[in-house]
Amino acid sequence: MVEAGVHYNPHLSVDCVIFGFTGDQLKVLLVERINTKPAQKTKHKLPGDLIHILEDLNGAAERILYELTGLKNIFLHQFSVFGNPDRMSNEEDRNWLEESSGLTINRVVTTAYFSLIGIDNSNSKNEIKNNASWHDINALPELAFDHAEIIRDGLESLRKEIRYEPICFELLPEKFTIREIQVLYEVILGQQLDNRNFRKKLLKAEYIEPLNIRQKGVAHKPAMYYTFNKDIYEGRNKEQSFYNF
Amino acid sequence: MVEAGVHYNPHLSVDCVIFGFTGDQLKVLLVERINTKPAQKTKHKLPGDLIHILEDLNGAAERILYELTGLKNIFLHQFSVFGNPDRMSNEEDRNWLEESSGLTINRVVTTAYFSLIGIDNSNSKNEIKNNASWHDINALPELAFDHAEIIRDGLESLRKEIRYEPICFELLPEKFTIREIQVLYEVILGQQLDNRNFRKKLLKAEYIEPLNIRQKGVAHKPAMYYTFNKDIYEGRNKEQSFYNF
Repeated sequence: MVEAGVHYNPHLSVDCVIFGFTGDQLKVLLVERINTKPAQKTKHKLPGDLIHILEDLNGAAERILYELTGLKNIFLHQFSVFGNPDRMSNEEDRNWLEESSGLTINRVVTTAYFSLIGIDNSNSKNEIKNNASWHDINALPELAFDHAEIIRDGLESLRKEIRYEPICFELLPEKFTIREIQVLYEVILGQQLDNRNFRKKLLKAEYIEPLNIRQKGVAHKPAMYYTFNKDIYEGRNKEQSFYNF
Repeated sequence: MVEAGVHYNPHLSVDCVIFGFTGDQLKVLLVERINTKPAQKTKHKLPGDLIHILEDLNGAAERILYELTGLKNIFLHQFSVFGNPDRMSNEEDRNWLEESSGLTINRVVTTAYFSLIGIDNSNSKNEIKNNASWHDINALPELAFDHAEIIRDGLESLRKEIRYEPICFELLPEKFTIREIQVLYEVILGQQLDNRNFRKKLLKAEYIEPLNIRQKGVAHKPAMYYTFNKDIYEGRNKEQSFYNF
């Protein structure tokens, strides 16, 4: 029999790390804490909030992301739980949360989600609203709570995920050049890749199909366009991707 | 301002899916709910419990695994949170938890961990105690709560993890045959693999080194032993493993 006194019930929240790819940069979606008194030293945080009483975690993440940023119909990958008992130890953060929630806050355990979407001025699909804004992953402002750590871990999870899920291909336009897909990988991985090896390995994949269409109106030698064939990808013999020696 | 009434604080627990590899079978570690009244229809569950008040989730998982099964110094991979509001809806499960914890239970959100260890009668390192026992992954008894689902998801996570982490190599004895490592992959993946492709791909990895020692006293043609060179694995050019087309 465990003593009842040693347990207690923390608050539960969700936080969303939404990565946005612009074509040559990786950004993260942040929201601003506004109308707070006293004024906050640290303004930015991830879109996230406490969950409702009968809400499923995934459902809460979708609702909160929509309410705070206007984004919806985005696939959210749950990647980690942050439950360090000290994560509310910053007084400014705790005061803000108590004021904005009307609750007395001790411990908050948060479940974190990530997603990768395309952002583009001409693309109204992923328009954001309210106090949400995109920030370059390499120049983030100071962040509330442990949100810098959550973003770091979210990026690690994204880097793992692109090894075995076609997230990157689904992000690109229907026709793309090898250079475009390589830039996407380089931006996510945060490092340059060897052009020759990348090209060689990519062109071996039967689900990457040449379109026999070339770029037009470019100053350099026009590159070939390729397309991602999802049917082939899903129907391929996956056996060898199970072991990646 | 959110209404305080819509939030409430669930209980928090951890559950551990410990996979054990015997050399040719994959097993899962379960514990028995004993000394309960009335007697339980469903006896088995994963090793798991409610966390303590100031306990970190990872620390709680280690403590609870040790208390319930005797296992320690095992690397636990956090893989998912199970927070469905209905997961305590089975009356027998809820009654048992209330009785054993002395608490009134509404909602319990659990953070799940998996690990893969070697089990072997000659290996006293991973000896288990109390009411813990190993069960074949393909013949599990009826399980309490949503533990069957947690095991399924844990196995999926293990299958992903072996694609980019050397978990399997670290599990094998210092010298192993190609057949032994293939059986380990087959048992985890739950399917036969093509011998020729597997061998070819494995032997291309420079961190798998032939020992020029062969099996002795076997009825078939004695196989070559290989070893896993962790230094080469960690020092290798990882670039190409970042994209697995």
